[in-house]
Amino acid sequence: MIIAEQVADVRRAVRDARRRDTTIGCVPTMGALHAGHESLIEACRAECNFTAVTIFVNPTQFGPGEDFDRYPRPLEEDLARCRRAGVDLVFVPAVETLYPAAFSTYVDVEPLSRVLEGASRPGHFRGVATVVLKLLNIVEPDRAYFGRKDFQQQLLVRKMCRELDLAVEIRTCPTVREPDGLALSSRNRYLNPGERQTALALYRSLQLAQGRLQDGERDAPAIASDMRQFLETAGARPDYAIIADPESLDELTAPRQNMVALVAARVGRTRLIDNLPITLESRA
Amino acid sequence: MIIAEQVADVRRAVRDARRRDTTIGCVPTMGALHAGHESLIEACRAECNFTAVTIFVNPTQFGPGEDFDRYPRPLEEDLARCRRAGVDLVFVPAVETLYPAAFSTYVDVEPLSRVLEGASRPGHFRGVATVVLKLLNIVEPDRAYFGRKDFQQQLLVRKMCRELDLAVEIRTCPTVREPDGLALSSRNRYLNPGERQTALALYRSLQLAQGRLQDGERDAPAIASDMRQFLETAGARPDYAIIADPESLDELTAPRQNMVALVAARVGRTRLIDNLPITLESRA
Repeated sequence: MIIAEQVADVRRAVRDARRRDTTIGCVPTMGALHAGHESLIEACRAECNFTAVTIFVNPTQFGPGEDFDRYPRPLEEDLARCRRAGVDLVFVPAVETLYPAAFSTYVDVEPLSRVLEGASRPGHFRGVATVVLKLLNIVEPDRAYFGRKDFQQQLLVRKMCRELDLAVEIRTCPTVREPDGLALSSRNRYLNPGERQTALALYRSLQLAQGRLQDGERDAPAIASDMRQFLETAGARPDYAIIADPESLDELTAPRQNMVALVAARVGRTRLIDNLPITLESRA
Repeated sequence: MIIAEQVADVRRAVRDARRRDTTIGCVPTMGALHAGHESLIEACRAECNFTAVTIFVNPTQFGPGEDFDRYPRPLEEDLARCRRAGVDLVFVPAVETLYPAAFSTYVDVEPLSRVLEGASRPGHFRGVATVVLKLLNIVEPDRAYFGRKDFQQQLLVRKMCRELDLAVEIRTCPTVREPDGLALSSRNRYLNPGERQTALALYRSLQLAQGRLQDGERDAPAIASDMRQFLETAGARPDYAIIADPESLDELTAPRQNMVALVAARVGRTRLIDNLPITLESRA
């Protein structure tokens, strides 16, 4: 497994691989790898014969007062996990490598970057779009893999790649959950045992929405309001909970065949997100 | 010569060429080609064995009330010129091909995009950066060629490519001038004979600055002020005229070894720009 800190080393390794007519896959991560990331690596290895993982805690996607400084960085553990998973190359750039002095080029993907996570975390998606574009330009993969857990992020990355004409296919892989339903997240390690229990309310609120929609209930905003109520009762502080169009993320007033329920809430000091695609059976 | 209107056709042709271990060069233009563009094509052909020219009058870099609608589009003439110049591929996309409905991804290169041309034409460089990034992503050239006539543009494109980690080398080629010194521009064809004469004042104001700086004059802002005076006296309406650092475009108060004088002025209804790199001999 190649461990590269410099852009030129990544380019060299990828170009060597490409000369062998290889399909290159990339899994961008912020490290603190868990089984969710492993499922992305697995999907990548199934479709590509060269798998590059990037590990970079990207400062430009964290707002002031967010957890950039305390975000977990268990590098040795992450590298061991990549090695076990059969990764070919890990790119672990320093912050100054990706953001040299006077850096000031940014990508905006409107209007997706302004709603939900973007409304709660101003500048977040500008940072995400910019770093993902940089990483894709460095690795130049044929395919890149993102988790559905960050639903808005994968939509934004898809839109950016399509609208900037990047020659990369974006793959979105299902959310990986704990046995009790909690979506895997590097931030789950911030939770104490009581908070860990409370955090389950996010997934349960999504299931509540799914159940009621599949039971034929028509008032989507009322269901969303009950999701928020459910979260509050469980001791979480909801940031948003909505039933939305899975492409535009516009809130739905009436159910459609394909929807997504999205939720963000604080549990203690930790902000968590989750979502659930919801499909209604078509009725004759 | 391949004439492609679709992204997929460009990709196919470029990838075929690359399989033959070819160096790909790209010359992005808005068409209305003149000897300035031809010098870019020539530079490209000298260094690359596959030359792609893009012809696209990019709506996102024109402001309201600017000349997008009347910008010249002599397509047949342009294609004939490309054929004569030995171009391998011309990409002539429709507006809807590069900007499909709901397009809303943009690149900002700060602070360069806010000064001079950017101050006079808000949004201009956002449009330039975005379309150049798209074209470079479509053609995926090893090198791309820009004219020094658009001095701020080539700086901005260089910074964007560096900061977004594009694997492309940007080449800047010298401004091509008429025998009397007027910089070639597709917009020169807007000028009537009297305006054509007045337009010469742009280059003359740059020469005035060069002469006085090379004569040892130290007060750069005073020289810039005299440039504006000179333009006004000649009947042009200056927008800006400054002596600047050639990397940051910050206005200089005192001369340096390397500078650039930049000017923008209206002649009749036509807005013209020009610039001149100025070097002082080092003195022991």
